[in-house]
Amino acid sequence: VTARSLPIGVFDSGVGGLTVVAALRERLPAESILYLGDTARLPYGTKSPETVLRYTRKNVDFLLARGIKAVVVACNTASALAVPHLAPALPLWGVIEAGAERAAAASGGRVGVIATESTIRSDAYAAALRRLRPELDVRSQACPLFVPLVEEGWTEDEIAEAVARRYLEPLLDAGIDTLVLGCTHYPLLRPVLERVVGPGVALVDSASAVAEQVARDLEAAGLRADGAPGAPRGELHAYVTDTAERFARLAHQILDGDLTFELVDVT
Amino acid sequence: VTARSLPIGVFDSGVGGLTVVAALRERLPAESILYLGDTARLPYGTKSPETVLRYTRKNVDFLLARGIKAVVVACNTASALAVPHLAPALPLWGVIEAGAERAAAASGGRVGVIATESTIRSDAYAAALRRLRPELDVRSQACPLFVPLVEEGWTEDEIAEAVARRYLEPLLDAGIDTLVLGCTHYPLLRPVLERVVGPGVALVDSASAVAEQVARDLEAAGLRADGAPGAPRGELHAYVTDTAERFARLAHQILDGDLTFELVDVT
Repeated sequence: VTARSLPIGVFDSGVGGLTVVAALRERLPAESILYLGDTARLPYGTKSPETVLRYTRKNVDFLLARGIKAVVVACNTASALAVPHLAPALPLWGVIEAGAERAAAASGGRVGVIATESTIRSDAYAAALRRLRPELDVRSQACPLFVPLVEEGWTEDEIAEAVARRYLEPLLDAGIDTLVLGCTHYPLLRPVLERVVGPGVALVDSASAVAEQVARDLEAAGLRADGAPGAPRGELHAYVTDTAERFARLAHQILDGDLTFELVDVT
Repeated sequence: VTARSLPIGVFDSGVGGLTVVAALRERLPAESILYLGDTARLPYGTKSPETVLRYTRKNVDFLLARGIKAVVVACNTASALAVPHLAPALPLWGVIEAGAERAAAASGGRVGVIATESTIRSDAYAAALRRLRPELDVRSQACPLFVPLVEEGWTEDEIAEAVARRYLEPLLDAGIDTLVLGCTHYPLLRPVLERVVGPGVALVDSASAVAEQVARDLEAAGLRADGAPGAPRGELHAYVTDTAERFARLAHQILDGDLTFELVDVT
């Protein structure tokens, strides 16, 4: 077994991080993936930085112990609160930098960021955007109801739209031209968000941005699995810390197919 | 220290259980209370029975170790999934039986139950109601968005009303005359729920029902703190497993005053 044939570990607080897995599998089809969803302890978006860091360390250690070549922290909250405090022995990416880079490149000057309460409070996206382009006007908005709406499957109706309008109104009033979807669940609300913000605002989602970054960095490190045409598709194995059928439903919706979850204890 | 002067332990997955504390303090003002909100691991309402039982045992053990005379499991999900499997050394109440008794006494024949996904899936309220009155027609509805709405503070507006209408429509179509609020957060939605169900449906909340049951049972067991007029008000001490300012805000709203939380680790 060479390092390049090992899987990439992907960790999220739940199954929303499968949006990052979907992006990775589209960009890097030959890579195998070990996914861990900490469904017993989700959501992270309302927890304190100390608790998010503690859980993130345990989850990353769990994946490291299973033999991986690199780690993607798909959870925006863990990326914002924990990734800066990790000292990993392997390549490790959060989703903040990639999302911020793409938004900074896309924006005409005014960027909106929507995310969980904890991600917004961390100021991680705004700080990353200002590092890249200090003159950017960044407006942030926590949207705590978006995750439960997505988990309930109410992503396309008038309630989702009313909630989105209420959260986004201050950002639209401020004249944003770009909106960062700073949570793995938010891509599932994309049609409603597009309706609410209108054609003048570009939506940036971190999932495809981080997949691009992972592809680039693995290539540079000589760690990419063979991506020749006709190479076999990588495998996907998923662990969760709690079983509940609602997660299977959401996973099916994100990956457009069934996924079997293995129940594990990471405490 | 005699047993009757010891505090009552109250456990909930978060701070919603303070609605039970408020009811206990109104009914039993001389009782001291030790409250534990497992805010690091909330919500319980989407977790599996095994996980809810594991967390409930740890939380009850935590309170027992601090010296209490009795335990109230304020969390409806833990009451439904875990309480039947506990073998406590002290008097212990969940909220299901008390709520079901009150609803069975109030109903003309058709009862609606609203609660978290896990509580509804457990069938605990419906089973308790049928034990009390086998002829009752019981309709159940999980309302996963209600807790996040309450935690966001959106309890009185058109979004709350639209969500409530969508969840309650099947129950109203079925002709319920009584509605059990089977989650500690739901009393905070009472004005909206009353508007949606109209004057013909009685709302039953487990908080005041369980407070009445606790008063009766402590009295019978000779465990009531002195309730003579002019007796000093009991003390309230609250522990949480994670700090987040949103919980302080909600606690303030429920208790109509400030409460200091002590951070503890129960894992």
